Amino acid sequence: MSSITLTLPDGKELKVPKGATAFDAAQAIGKRLAQDAIAAKLDDDLIDLSRPLEQDGRFSVFTWSSQEGKEVMRHSAAHLLAQAVLRIHKDVKLTIGPTTEDGFYYDMESQHSFTPEDLPKIEEEMAKIVEENFVVKRHVVSKPQARELFNGNEYKLELIDESEEPITVYEQGEFKDLCRGPHTSTTGRLKAFKLTKISGAYWRADARNKQLQRIYGVIFPEKKMLESYLFMLQEAEKRDHRKLGRELDLFNIHEEGPGFIFWHPKGMIIINEIKDFIRGQNRKRGFNEIQTPAILNEMLWKKSGHYDNFRENMYFVDIDGQRFAIKPMNCPGACLTYKTKKRSYRELPLRFSEFGHVHRHELAGVVSGLVRVRAFTQDDSHSYCTPEGLNQEVLDIIDYCQEVYRVFGFTEYEIFVATKPEKSVGTDEQWEKATEVLKGALQAREIKFGVKEGEGAFYGPKIEYNIKDSLGRNWQIGTIQVDFSMPDRFDLRYVGTDGSDEHRPVMVHKAIVGSIERFMGILIEHYAGKFPLWLSPEQVRILTVSDKFLDYAEKIKPLFDDAGVRASIDDRRESLPYKVRDAQLAKVNYILVVGEREVQDGTVTVRTESKVVGAMKVSDFIEKVKKEIDSKDLHA
Amino acid sequence: MSSITLTLPDGKELKVPKGATAFDAAQAIGKRLAQDAIAAKLDDDLIDLSRPLEQDGRFSVFTWSSQEGKEVMRHSAAHLLAQAVLRIHKDVKLTIGPTTEDGFYYDMESQHSFTPEDLPKIEEEMAKIVEENFVVKRHVVSKPQARELFNGNEYKLELIDESEEPITVYEQGEFKDLCRGPHTSTTGRLKAFKLTKISGAYWRADARNKQLQRIYGVIFPEKKMLESYLFMLQEAEKRDHRKLGRELDLFNIHEEGPGFIFWHPKGMIIINEIKDFIRGQNRKRGFNEIQTPAILNEMLWKKSGHYDNFRENMYFVDIDGQRFAIKPMNCPGACLTYKTKKRSYRELPLRFSEFGHVHRHELAGVVSGLVRVRAFTQDDSHSYCTPEGLNQEVLDIIDYCQEVYRVFGFTEYEIFVATKPEKSVGTDEQWEKATEVLKGALQAREIKFGVKEGEGAFYGPKIEYNIKDSLGRNWQIGTIQVDFSMPDRFDLRYVGTDGSDEHRPVMVHKAIVGSIERFMGILIEHYAGKFPLWLSPEQVRILTVSDKFLDYAEKIKPLFDDAGVRASIDDRRESLPYKVRDAQLAKVNYILVVGEREVQDGTVTVRTESKVVGAMKVSDFIEKVKKEIDSKDLHA
Repeated sequence: MSSITLTLPDGKELKVPKGATAFDAAQAIGKRLAQDAIAAKLDDDLIDLSRPLEQDGRFSVFTWSSQEGKEVMRHSAAHLLAQAVLRIHKDVKLTIGPTTEDGFYYDMESQHSFTPEDLPKIEEEMAKIVEENFVVKRHVVSKPQARELFNGNEYKLELIDESEEPITVYEQGEFKDLCRGPHTSTTGRLKAFKLTKISGAYWRADARNKQLQRIYGVIFPEKKMLESYLFMLQEAEKRDHRKLGRELDLFNIHEEGPGFIFWHPKGMIIINEIKDFIRGQNRKRGFNEIQTPAILNEMLWKKSGHYDNFRENMYFVDIDGQRFAIKPMNCPGACLTYKTKKRSYRELPLRFSEFGHVHRHELAGVVSGLVRVRAFTQDDSHSYCTPEGLNQEVLDIIDYCQEVYRVFGFTEYEIFVATKPEKSVGTDEQWEKATEVLKGALQAREIKFGVKEGEGAFYGPKIEYNIKDSLGRNWQIGTIQVDFSMPDRFDLRYVGTDGSDEHRPVMVHKAIVGSIERFMGILIEHYAGKFPLWLSPEQVRILTVSDKFLDYAEKIKPLFDDAGVRASIDDRRESLPYKVRDAQLAKVNYILVVGEREVQDGTVTVRTESKVVGAMKVSDFIEKVKKEIDSKDLHA
Repeated sequence: MSSITLTLPDGKELKVPKGATAFDAAQAIGKRLAQDAIAAKLDDDLIDLSRPLEQDGRFSVFTWSSQEGKEVMRHSAAHLLAQAVLRIHKDVKLTIGPTTEDGFYYDMESQHSFTPEDLPKIEEEMAKIVEENFVVKRHVVSKPQARELFNGNEYKLELIDESEEPITVYEQGEFKDLCRGPHTSTTGRLKAFKLTKISGAYWRADARNKQLQRIYGVIFPEKKMLESYLFMLQEAEKRDHRKLGRELDLFNIHEEGPGFIFWHPKGMIIINEIKDFIRGQNRKRGFNEIQTPAILNEMLWKKSGHYDNFRENMYFVDIDGQRFAIKPMNCPGACLTYKTKKRSYRELPLRFSEFGHVHRHELAGVVSGLVRVRAFTQDDSHSYCTPEGLNQEVLDIIDYCQEVYRVFGFTEYEIFVATKPEKSVGTDEQWEKATEVLKGALQAREIKFGVKEGEGAFYGPKIEYNIKDSLGRNWQIGTIQVDFSMPDRFDLRYVGTDGSDEHRPVMVHKAIVGSIERFMGILIEHYAGKFPLWLSPEQVRILTVSDKFLDYAEKIKPLFDDAGVRASIDDRRESLPYKVRDAQLAKVNYILVVGEREVQDGTVTVRTESKVVGAMKVSDFIEKVKKEIDSKDLHA
């Protein structure tokens, strides 16, 4: 029997008999791997585990932990869904069933109008098919064979006509679907699924075509993972920042300004606290705040490269017959500011920070809440460095980012280096150098990172921080970008140790929380609306047991004001439990009750959302709260 | 001899013989008045003091203290200038010689090209004419007579052709000029003058006409006043905020953004201090900060009345085929925010404050430094009141304004009530009511005010604060506006004590420093660049006597940082006197010298711009500085 040689991802070679399946090869690598395996890849082809291997090549096995593994399992779940639906509704015509970011769906034409009530029935049928544990088989067919198989389904026929041979069909039990594959080897692998919702759709997303019905679902390799995902979904819905933003009166969006945020007093308090915190950090780390205009002449944006590379996202305005752009970024303004003086190597790195309010066009369809807006405030900065100082600056900014995330309670993140995009300025050499600096700095800090090919900014590569929130969701927020090209375009110089001003600085762009608006959206959901004390718009609420104690409440309230503690009084003629409940709903951090005893003793009875702390002297309590505010303790 | 009856401004009646001159009448009123008199008015005619009074009428006498007195004297000085120039340069053709805001000029055609060197010679000749003390005579002439008199001067002939009879000509010595008058009675009155500059001009300000030469001058009734004016001019030039802004590196303006300010780090520190101060005051006074978008749909601006009444000053931008405006004011955004909730009389006055960054178009020609810009940040607020609460709110805001001005060192101001302009919204009744409230509040606080007819905002009348700076110049900055009409337009409501929500709130708009950019310009000049400690970008500079003491400087510097005191180190290898001089030029508040003795004793030697304070323990000095910062003492 002849054998073939498979080259594994770690470079090792594996010899297997020619005609052994991918699953056999996986087993040869490791039992555990074979058990978790979902699909495999030979050279550039993603294949079923059951596929016989006929020649040498690069070989890898995918489990759920890889993107490929997830997609195959989701795709198989779409077939499972389709098979179940067909068993219940014979008239259904299937169209396509792709995967999504976190699950799958199938679009179908049916006389039956699907409602949420249908889903349990379909799920039941799906469970049966899992139980039946069909082997999933792949068939290579000719176009005429395929046309015959899907005769009567004009959608599939259209897909067949557009396809090139070989055409593949997957079969499990009585069900066959046109599909490129691969799939899990049996339906028995698909144990932990859930159908999540129904929506309308159009064939080929074209409203002129027939309307279809779409059923969404999610699948996981284990029940436990499904459960925690469903819990997360439920939590996320409860925490939806648009909902909480309204309930807590933090912000609003009006039809007069789609994608533009109206900050209400309580939201503004949080925004100002975030800005003050960053301002303090900037001061400590030598970033000097500047402010550049919102509107600048189009000529500047041509010079900076934004006009050629970012124009679709920019808004324009005419002034005195000349065209101006509303700034989408702050970097050109910072470069003009750099240029106002002769700069010396002694003052580098020169660090300008700016809370830059920028406008970027987004399509009406994608604008949503705080996380996708058309105007936002960046915690932007631009460091102008000597080439020798560049590396240290990037390292310092990496440390800076992580300190900021820590304070807000984000301790886990994924990090990527995003490289040269299709549209870009600068030479290849500059791009390589810049990318090397970013990767080198992360390596020096022993930080793991992935690479996002082609996702850099048009002027330079970037480090991207994706923070993980309390529900385990990832949010892309901070970026660090190295830029050799804008200093060229603006002919920025500094006087070097040699006395010549022919030296060119390198720019490092950074934004740690990124868009403060978006960050607020993330924080609202991360904290479920219950902000830590230092950020909280209402840190203390004083509840009077009855009108008799209002004088006392009004006497102690200014003590809080003077101490810089945000306190209010609830003097409504409502029952105490009602007022406590209301303060809890408003996510007040400390609820103080004042009645007979408190007035007598000069105390307040302190409770938090979850527990009664007890009576404390007013001054002691204020001291305690002030300390907690200063500490920025997340659990205060 | 028959007599006539003159009604004086205070209502009293004065009988004088028919044919008595205005001067005679002035003497009958009071000797001192007659001595200071420059011109007079009979009914609506401004007349020479020498004019005989022939009928009854309202009569008043003008001295320098009135606008009319100033204008007559300035106009007479223009004749004086013209007469002197003609004596020196026979070929000169005079055109017109009007008054300006603070002086006068004369435009003339001449072969001679005037330079600043000519001015002393002309002034000398002017002094001679004053010495000669000609009586100034008024002649009424016919058009042909006038044409004959000014034969050969095509400018004067053009003016004569356009005039209606009676045409008047004024004569003093050999000099005659076509003029409506009136004038001072003799050239001897014109003792305190100064020619200030020369510029080019065009006949009728039309560049297609011949170029003329313009000579500017100022005049005062007394030498002392002239001197203090010239001193003020000199001071103002030294304090010019554009010059100081550059020298102190506070801000810049680039050609890419005419009228748009780039704030540099030092300027930004001051801006942030001002905002923090106002933020603190707002908090204390129950103003809740909000932030509304920079761009909102044109429909909103139609609803608010801005489109019809303010469009020329607005910038527009297209988004998704709809027209949006960049906000020129914050009020519509505040009204939308008011409307997001049902409001009750209990929460009124509801006060929203906003550091609103607004854009308003200004012509390229008038844009200048910080005081006339196209984008600025208002310390805006909108109070929504019940009609019953309106009066108290206006009173509170008046007090608020005056507290803010006091902190910055402005204790003198002129106040005006500006009334309904030509373009306006709202009913006459609303305007009357609103104007009454403003006047009533000022009267209640016993504050004197003038009236500026027709200068209100389009939506309501306003109180205008004109603060007097350290050079005695007036700057219009703060406004308080009562507005019944925008609540109508936005259909704003609140639930009254009767439980119905048919109640309409009244809005009070206020901005105390007005535009923070403009206010900064005023402050730079008011303080001559030397900011009081709490605002100062560089509060402390530590100078090392030699490199040996750098360690010590670097050891104590963080103590300042931690205490929130802005300190820097000058460790250059320059002489101590050089470094002290440099720190003085940079307007640093405290200059600390550290050398041998200071290191030994753990002290710093403290000096201010003008005096050496002596050695102090570092911790004592930090305590002192912190206290002074907190006090916002102007002289710290």
